[in-house]
Amino acid sequence: MPVNYVTPAADQLFPVAGVRLGVTEAGIRKANRRDLTLIELAPGSRVAGVFTKNRFCAAPVHVCRAHLQKEGIRALVINTGVANAGTGEPGMVSARQTCDAVAQLLDIAADQVLPFSTGVILEPLPVERLVAGLPGARAALKTDGWHEAAHAIMTTDTVAKAASRKVGAGGTACSITGMAKGAGMIRPNMATMLGFIATDAAVAQPLLEQLVKEAADESFNCITVDGDTSTNDSFVLIATGRGSAKFESAQTAGWAEFKTAVIAVARELAQAIVRDGEGATKYIEVAVEGGRTREECKAVGYAIGHSPLVKTAFFASDPNLGRILAAIGYAWNNDPALADLDVDKVKVWLGDVLVAENGGRAASYREEDGARTMKPAEIRIRVDLGRGSHAANVWTCDFSYDYVKINADYRS
Amino acid sequence: MPVNYVTPAADQLFPVAGVRLGVTEAGIRKANRRDLTLIELAPGSRVAGVFTKNRFCAAPVHVCRAHLQKEGIRALVINTGVANAGTGEPGMVSARQTCDAVAQLLDIAADQVLPFSTGVILEPLPVERLVAGLPGARAALKTDGWHEAAHAIMTTDTVAKAASRKVGAGGTACSITGMAKGAGMIRPNMATMLGFIATDAAVAQPLLEQLVKEAADESFNCITVDGDTSTNDSFVLIATGRGSAKFESAQTAGWAEFKTAVIAVARELAQAIVRDGEGATKYIEVAVEGGRTREECKAVGYAIGHSPLVKTAFFASDPNLGRILAAIGYAWNNDPALADLDVDKVKVWLGDVLVAENGGRAASYREEDGARTMKPAEIRIRVDLGRGSHAANVWTCDFSYDYVKINADYRS
Repeated sequence: MPVNYVTPAADQLFPVAGVRLGVTEAGIRKANRRDLTLIELAPGSRVAGVFTKNRFCAAPVHVCRAHLQKEGIRALVINTGVANAGTGEPGMVSARQTCDAVAQLLDIAADQVLPFSTGVILEPLPVERLVAGLPGARAALKTDGWHEAAHAIMTTDTVAKAASRKVGAGGTACSITGMAKGAGMIRPNMATMLGFIATDAAVAQPLLEQLVKEAADESFNCITVDGDTSTNDSFVLIATGRGSAKFESAQTAGWAEFKTAVIAVARELAQAIVRDGEGATKYIEVAVEGGRTREECKAVGYAIGHSPLVKTAFFASDPNLGRILAAIGYAWNNDPALADLDVDKVKVWLGDVLVAENGGRAASYREEDGARTMKPAEIRIRVDLGRGSHAANVWTCDFSYDYVKINADYRS
Repeated sequence: MPVNYVTPAADQLFPVAGVRLGVTEAGIRKANRRDLTLIELAPGSRVAGVFTKNRFCAAPVHVCRAHLQKEGIRALVINTGVANAGTGEPGMVSARQTCDAVAQLLDIAADQVLPFSTGVILEPLPVERLVAGLPGARAALKTDGWHEAAHAIMTTDTVAKAASRKVGAGGTACSITGMAKGAGMIRPNMATMLGFIATDAAVAQPLLEQLVKEAADESFNCITVDGDTSTNDSFVLIATGRGSAKFESAQTAGWAEFKTAVIAVARELAQAIVRDGEGATKYIEVAVEGGRTREECKAVGYAIGHSPLVKTAFFASDPNLGRILAAIGYAWNNDPALADLDVDKVKVWLGDVLVAENGGRAASYREEDGARTMKPAEIRIRVDLGRGSHAANVWTCDFSYDYVKINADYRS
């Protein structure tokens, strides 16, 4: 059960002119499950992406990186069930065969196709079943296919994740719609499990490349469920140029509003992943400020967000503050710049309650106040490092029996 | 229930001439529990220690570091229940009061006392109760007190950890006995939760300083339960010089054998901590070889050993190899030198079964072989990075429902 998250209804997801989505059951790993999604883009669409930095990155990620070297992407194909990661050269062959088959079907070139896979690592991709499913996915293509596609890309997700916005007016009016999947093996580094956002605005390629990085950095790169960076993380931003808005540079009228909206959609999707984190019962925002750099603030946020001791304490609604302090204290493992952190200057709040300062528990702290702030399903930890003006947020969830259950059962 | 570990019997722990141990119930946090241990050292004993690198390190750790600046340590005092960490200046006062009280009792100077605390972080140390308990601990002092002391320093441990050896003969004969505690918040960095090893050999101070670091590096610094570096990690090596052995330099006859035995005792204690890891049902050795440096091998070992996905798969006895590969792939998060890891050269074995090579699953791998190797309570993962001649081991345990239960319940 996700924490305070409901999938938007189909009619809350605005179609994006130039984007059609179709899903089908290809039987990739299990029968009777929609596991194959085809996304067709209108000619002239621009695409930019960021991908996992895991060294064992999946074959489709290699292919995506290669195909994004030039413009002209016209289709995306996404399968669940098998991640096609840790599959060596045969995996690369399968990913290329997938692109070939999509290209033939849509009468485009193979390098105009981006392939994505998610599911079990190290299993061979049953490419013949995937290819056999493609005509069905093509037949299902429609502009209002976001809702179905968001469901078809799920694996251990308990809810589909999608978000949509309309911004601007007149010449800057545009729609932005996105979807994402992911619940476990979530600690994206430069990207997320699978995230797709499309807009009908026209966006110059360099601007789009910059925006996809910035949006990832403000959203997917700020979340963690279990600290495990996936082999398949991919986040793709599509601008079809079929609407009225046209952004040539960061100075174009309406760009700031557009950019803010794209980041808001990305963040909504990223936070939805955490709200649906495997076994999650609590949604936790770790807001770190007063750092010398944004990086060291994130290092502290991740130290807290990854600590199994902190996460189990949140599961128990136990204000076990010492575990938070301990995590702050060893955060220099994540960023050596923190090795000289002066703990006497660190302040920690749970919700609005000051819990620690001067190297220890705040004099004003009362256990009942701490207990009160731990009760709700959404909790905010605020940390002031007291040594600079930078800040960063990390979003995470608690660690429950169900996390163990899900991950001890999954695959077997 | 620890994995294949039984506390040695009292008569398996050799007394160390010059060391007397006494325990008592001081009611530090709960009544009717032996929670205070006093260790008295004969004059002329030499002591060396390594301590946590957590920036929120405990008050007693600060005091230990200061007191070890000069020689002449004559007593150690250890309380459980309260860690006296995250307690600011009042915590320092309590730690110093503890030393003062021990000094008065034993007619020594306060800076000849090393204080240690373990338990809940951020709670004030009830120093008056500790001080009131000291005469009882003193009255209980005896040379064969190791077994009782190993029990008295436990917190969430389910078994006491101790180890003992006799090595050498004639002029190099000596006894080495040690004890340790710890089950959660275990990812020592330069030291462990609490570990104490004493020998009746005489060891020159510089040699002892070097040995304590080396022994920590080969034992406590190779284990992880949950990746949480404690605020109180301390590992102390004591040489009383009351036996016949006398080591003035690394060239002294018998030194190599003695050193090997000290490291063996340290490793036995460190491994006992993992075998008793919170909720552990499996004991896992991650042996990484073929690295360019020992550090990058440890980085890979820790990436695997910390991954909640790997650990839950071990709990389920599920050979979910993809999770291991994914962890190897993001190990560069721990050591940037691994950013150029060529995954096609990486080989992975579960037990004696080759499971991955050439960037994917080994052609010879059969699922039933993987399943067979996952069954026993002790499992070895071997990773060959294929790029150098260095190696390192990391010892860890699985992640079970009981880890969550223990840490969601502890303290509340």
